[in-house]
Amino acid sequence: MQKYFISNEELNNNHIISDDVNHIKNVMRFKQGDQIIVSNEEDEYIACLTVLDKKEIKFERLTRLENNNELPFTVDIYQGYPKGDKIQDIIKHGTELGATSIFPTIMKRSVVKLDNTKEELKNIRLNKIAKEAAEQSNRKKITKVCIKPNLKKIDFSEYNVKILAYEETAKMGQLSNLKALIKNIKLNDKVCIVVGPEGGLDLDEVSYLEGLGFVPCALGKRILRTETASLYALSAISYELELK
Amino acid sequence: MQKYFISNEELNNNHIISDDVNHIKNVMRFKQGDQIIVSNEEDEYIACLTVLDKKEIKFERLTRLENNNELPFTVDIYQGYPKGDKIQDIIKHGTELGATSIFPTIMKRSVVKLDNTKEELKNIRLNKIAKEAAEQSNRKKITKVCIKPNLKKIDFSEYNVKILAYEETAKMGQLSNLKALIKNIKLNDKVCIVVGPEGGLDLDEVSYLEGLGFVPCALGKRILRTETASLYALSAISYELELK
Repeated sequence: MQKYFISNEELNNNHIISDDVNHIKNVMRFKQGDQIIVSNEEDEYIACLTVLDKKEIKFERLTRLENNNELPFTVDIYQGYPKGDKIQDIIKHGTELGATSIFPTIMKRSVVKLDNTKEELKNIRLNKIAKEAAEQSNRKKITKVCIKPNLKKIDFSEYNVKILAYEETAKMGQLSNLKALIKNIKLNDKVCIVVGPEGGLDLDEVSYLEGLGFVPCALGKRILRTETASLYALSAISYELELK
Repeated sequence: MQKYFISNEELNNNHIISDDVNHIKNVMRFKQGDQIIVSNEEDEYIACLTVLDKKEIKFERLTRLENNNELPFTVDIYQGYPKGDKIQDIIKHGTELGATSIFPTIMKRSVVKLDNTKEELKNIRLNKIAKEAAEQSNRKKITKVCIKPNLKKIDFSEYNVKILAYEETAKMGQLSNLKALIKNIKLNDKVCIVVGPEGGLDLDEVSYLEGLGFVPCALGKRILRTETASLYALSAISYELELK
């Protein structure tokens, strides 16, 4: 069943007045009597559409759902800002795979240039992509997206598990770090994963992050593209800790 | 270092005469004296470019490389043929993550229509994508791609580990199947993974595959897009069996 994240105000008033009105009427072509799922990221209901006006859709709540597909700890991705539209795919897949937040981060080898206006528009666009992916994958919560313009200004002190995706670790034959870290994740932990952009992290960035307590981890034996690295790490976390 | 898979003939004669001539000269803009890696999927060398003619590049082999990043068992993906260009991304990522072969398979809910000519051209195009991805990710071997026009005509009898990616398994609270299968993979095993197209496998296809010994497996608690499912499974296999 198609899911829509709506605001608290919308849920309390049993109506939808956002962009989703267009999606419900013109993309999904829902009619009166059709059912959808509505959620404000806390409470979730099956709802029956009662009125479909041009700018407002009214619904009646039918059943409250008990759905919790969230990982029981925080997993934040700091993704070196990649070229082109790749960040959109990373956000889609990362949301499906349960990331709490994704921070597209300008690193030394990122080629993108963003001024404040562009950054704001990009953030809006990327959060919309995360909302749609969260709806599709039946997440309880939406992955939050926020561009970080400077790796070295980020405060990582709140995290107690710090994973650095670093292919050189594999070349040195050191393959066990990721598993050791993941196996030790506990309820309510705060995990973060740093992934370099195309061309990888600069050596200076690697030492900086190691100084902050990050553990360099190989993600298998092959060289992964930047857009595959976070998916590997998130899949590994889900595999290790959810498939019990 | 940029890697090129070349034919046995090319390796024996220390030259390159394929499409890669253009890539070496015009995309990478390599000059005489620059080094590349050449491989025929068996033997791999660092090579120095000696002559760059219009249709032929000559090289001198410098060092033999001992590189084996391959999984020590077969992993074949039977991917329900998805819409649009998604199959290209699946092949790119699947190759990076070590798949032996990827078989884009027409299933009940696939919307693509392929006649013989289209199928042949598509196979050529998709194998080229796999070759490039294998070069980028430093695979020893190239993932083979071959379209299968009919799920029910495939002979799965050679496989001894049969994974069916099936989201309903998660809904039934059955989350441990994938891990149980992966933990039991042994040297030289033949593993196959079937993933439905958008909309998933048809119920009839699920019973058919279960009848052939496939085990339905949840891939985490969320609903994954078809293009994410094989990446999850391959990441999980690498995580479990390579990160030791």
